[in-house]
Amino acid sequence: MTTMLAADTSAAKETGRLEAFSDGVFSIAITLLVLDLKVPSLSTGTTAPALWTALAKQWPSYFAFLTSFFTILTMWVSHHGIFRLMRRTDSALLFANGFLLLVVTAVPFPTALVATYLRTPAASAACAIYAGTFVVISVAYALLLLAARHRDGHLLAPHASPEINRRLRECYAIGTPLYLLAALAAPLSPWLSLAICTALWVFWSVGRRDRASGFGR
Amino acid sequence: MTTMLAADTSAAKETGRLEAFSDGVFSIAITLLVLDLKVPSLSTGTTAPALWTALAKQWPSYFAFLTSFFTILTMWVSHHGIFRLMRRTDSALLFANGFLLLVVTAVPFPTALVATYLRTPAASAACAIYAGTFVVISVAYALLLLAARHRDGHLLAPHASPEINRRLRECYAIGTPLYLLAALAAPLSPWLSLAICTALWVFWSVGRRDRASGFGR
Amino acid sequence: MTTMLAADTSAAKETGRLEAFSDGVFSIAITLLVLDLKVPSLSTGTTAPALWTALAKQWPSYFAFLTSFFTILTMWVSHHGIFRLMRRTDSALLFANGFLLLVVTAVPFPTALVATYLRTPAASAACAIYAGTFVVISVAYALLLLAARHRDGHLLAPHASPEINRRLRECYAIGTPLYLLAALAAPLSPWLSLAICTALWVFWSVGRRDRASGFGR
Amino acid sequence: MTTMLAADTSAAKETGRLEAFSDGVFSIAITLLVLDLKVPSLSTGTTAPALWTALAKQWPSYFAFLTSFFTILTMWVSHHGIFRLMRRTDSALLFANGFLLLVVTAVPFPTALVATYLRTPAASAACAIYAGTFVVISVAYALLLLAARHRDGHLLAPHASPEINRRLRECYAIGTPLYLLAALAAPLSPWLSLAICTALWVFWSVGRRDRASGFGR
Repeated sequence: MTTMLAADTSAAKETGRLEAFSDGVFSIAITLLVLDLKVPSLSTGTTAPALWTALAKQWPSYFAFLTSFFTILTMWVSHHGIFRLMRRTDSALLFANGFLLLVVTAVPFPTALVATYLRTPAASAACAIYAGTFVVISVAYALLLLAARHRDGHLLAPHASPEINRRLRECYAIGTPLYLLAALAAPLSPWLSLAICTALWVFWSVGRRDRASGFGR
Repeated sequence: MTTMLAADTSAAKETGRLEAFSDGVFSIAITLLVLDLKVPSLSTGTTAPALWTALAKQWPSYFAFLTSFFTILTMWVSHHGIFRLMRRTDSALLFANGFLLLVVTAVPFPTALVATYLRTPAASAACAIYAGTFVVISVAYALLLLAARHRDGHLLAPHASPEINRRLRECYAIGTPLYLLAALAAPLSPWLSLAICTALWVFWSVGRRDRASGFGR
Repeated sequence: MTTMLAADTSAAKETGRLEAFSDGVFSIAITLLVLDLKVPSLSTGTTAPALWTALAKQWPSYFAFLTSFFTILTMWVSHHGIFRLMRRTDSALLFANGFLLLVVTAVPFPTALVATYLRTPAASAACAIYAGTFVVISVAYALLLLAARHRDGHLLAPHASPEINRRLRECYAIGTPLYLLAALAAPLSPWLSLAICTALWVFWSVGRRDRASGFGR
Repeated sequence: MTTMLAADTSAAKETGRLEAFSDGVFSIAITLLVLDLKVPSLSTGTTAPALWTALAKQWPSYFAFLTSFFTILTMWVSHHGIFRLMRRTDSALLFANGFLLLVVTAVPFPTALVATYLRTPAASAACAIYAGTFVVISVAYALLLLAARHRDGHLLAPHASPEINRRLRECYAIGTPLYLLAALAAPLSPWLSLAICTALWVFWSVGRRDRASGFGR
């Protein structure tokens, strides 16, 4: 009895540090996005209307900031949702989680690419890379789900398997193919590519809220 | 009985991660402000008095650093105060919290704008955006309070509703209108705009200390 | 009985978040120091010896990085030591803590000043500001100790007052005056100023280790 | 009995904050690596193929990003593994941990060096410093293990000593000598140097997974 208790405590502690580390990475990656919002350099004799115009011209930066912020936030909410169902960790889960974190920390880079090149003829390359990053994130998310349910769900809380499977199906059926579509659409229309990425985080947010409020599936 | 306990523990864990993630974002946003304090670039043959002068000329940076630091800190203290009263989270709260974090992470950008343009004719635009950011923060804070008390206070600790309502009234009556006034005053006088923003964090700090010490309302 | 327990748990949670937020700020401030280590910009045809030389010339950066790192680390160990003795927080403590965090987040700025100007005639100004920052940190630390013991030690664990008083005496007798001396010595000799700052974190580390190992006072 | 319990709780809390602070530093250092991925500056009339080419030319940045990311991640997993075995901390452990964190926070700097100079004749200097950083990390890791087992394992959980000793042997026999070899090989072949660093994190990851799954030694 005492041994079991000790094991439980130790398991809780283990998940706790993994979550703390992941929270740290998510929260830093999401906060570093602000460094891509650059102060326009105008002459010291500039006027207020000139500053407003210069700031307005930077709208791709704000758009990319918003989309990246909410995509990382949504991914954090999903991460949070998965770890509520976990009771133990193992090394496979640690490294699946590490791969997801790798892609999340990289998000500020494609975001800066889009902010810099969205209004140039190179927009298609920037948007393909941007959407491609989200393809990799959704693959990493699927790998995390697979790691979570491996060893016959030994790492999961009781009765958590159906929820993990539901998330995995959603990822296979919606997330991965649509982000892939966004990446492939970029050469045709960078705007369509971004629109799909934006639509997806709106969908995840609203879809998830409905379920949580008991109105969804 | 066991089920209730399990539910409680799981709820505690859920709030815990939300607070950990929020603490991460608040603490990074507040620390990134230092990146707006730039080392002056002088020639290598420069003298100490020249460095003192160059540093003194950057006073708008220090002023903006201080005001932003204490505004974010005050917002964190408020966030801390709200979550002491929470027992559960739901998706609406997660996203209301996410919106608040979005605006908090953005604060270094308007701070850098004020630091760069306060002593130019474009100061009014910079200060309007700066105060405008705080308007959005106070709206986001009100939305968090509304999300906290929704579902008839089901998410709150017992007897916490009056405190949430008091904070909401304070936000409607003081925070939002005064920050809005600061934003609208910027075209007339950038200094008045900044003075209102500064006065508000001083007021929040002192007002809150009085209440906490039992000397306030 | 149940009420007391509930109160205790709530108090523990409160201190917990304050520590988590502070840990976040300390850990970010300490990590941002690396941004002051700049990659030298040499031509693409540069050779290995040229890169070694360019890196060697940057030694004031490494020196400032080390001193700032260990001073922040020492301050975190002290913070950790104080909060082990705390059982409750109040708003005065929150804001004393906030002031300490303000100065800690600012450390990368004077560090960059020293790194940039240590080998120029403006070194005295840079070193005076650097040591001056540590004066303010030691004052903020004293204020935190005062906030910790106020209300007749109501916030402290039983029997913790002597330890708080010992730390306060150490701060009044050693920390504040010696950092002040370092700041005042800067115009005479920037090197003496830095040497005092370096000596102090070495002293804090060794002094503290001795006490912890039971060999000290 | 009550006293023992109180002591246990306090010890748990102490380790908790040390882990939280370390997690903060690890997660920030790992996330700051993204700042070394620079958006290429091309003219506004640039085309998509030109952007793809410019991005492809930056491959040393991506390579250095990946290697540094997984080396820090592996180090975090090791840190996590050690602290699962700890029950108490003392000042020696705090400072051994502090030294490890110092080197970890510095990693973005040699990473940027490699990214900048890998395709220049100065690559040997950059790679020697890069591998040299990992030598120091492995020494710091050994010091942490030594601090963990000192005082006759008083700080450790029961039966944890063999695991600490196994890790220490692995560090002496594999980590330190191979990273040292990588540093010394850099003047002969920067590529060999990097290959050894890459091979090592792959080895740590796979080796550790096997053991954790019960298939290893």
